[in-house]
Amino acid sequence: MGAINLNSILETHLETIKTKGGDVLHGLKKTDLGYEGFGEAYFSRIESGLIKAWKKHNSMTMNILVPLGEVRFVFYFINPDGTENFLVKDIGVSNYVRLTVPPGIWFGFKGISQSLSLVLNIASIPHEPNEVDRKNIDDIKFNWS
Amino acid sequence: MGAINLNSILETHLETIKTKGGDVLHGLKKTDLGYEGFGEAYFSRIESGLIKAWKKHNSMTMNILVPLGEVRFVFYFINPDGTENFLVKDIGVSNYVRLTVPPGIWFGFKGISQSLSLVLNIASIPHEPNEVDRKNIDDIKFNWS
Repeated sequence: MGAINLNSILETHLETIKTKGGDVLHGLKKTDLGYEGFGEAYFSRIESGLIKAWKKHNSMTMNILVPLGEVRFVFYFINPDGTENFLVKDIGVSNYVRLTVPPGIWFGFKGISQSLSLVLNIASIPHEPNEVDRKNIDDIKFNWS
Repeated sequence: MGAINLNSILETHLETIKTKGGDVLHGLKKTDLGYEGFGEAYFSRIESGLIKAWKKHNSMTMNILVPLGEVRFVFYFINPDGTENFLVKDIGVSNYVRLTVPPGIWFGFKGISQSLSLVLNIASIPHEPNEVDRKNIDDIKFNWS
């Protein structure tokens, strides 16, 4: 495996299967590219227009899905030469993909649907406060609007 | 492990953590009672008032969560002596629990929220059509209304 950077984030198209009574939405299979083991699955609600930023996991690989609403994910990385990069991904019901995010990348997200959005993270390890770094939203300059 | 019956269905209270911008909802940890391995995670949408029934998994353990809306799950089991049992569980945002359902139990579900509900199944094995039995809704008599 090469060095981690923003190119290490994997985007995978997910199927939505038309079903009477309500569609079935694929998520993650253990045989899928991007599966790095199961530690914990949990949801984050994100309200319209609100932002949660910034966090960096140092051990966890995240597999992120948005089965309700639309969410803007912003990823931030400082290269070894000191240059900075941002990657912006709008995902949700209208762009139903899974993002696989390796450890070592700062991220934040914003609800960009008119109503509530829901993020599922299928994490490779259980939640562990000691492997998370946090910054205040203003500590990394990004134009969220 | 004893024989499977409706008493084998495990109900686990899940935490909702108040968080600025949108709450965090626990789902499943690999160390939780009821975790039987990770095969696949997928969502089923269920529209208000609609019913999906009946299915029985012969190998899969389901871990079922409802992070949006409210869903009535109905479980059906024929005992070795031929007697029948039903178990009804209304779960969702107002009763945020996880149901762990071992293989061998018939189930159906109905959207009982005013709007769309979302079911997450964290399944112990990937989807495999050959391990699923199906019946038409009328094949098992239950008063859904």
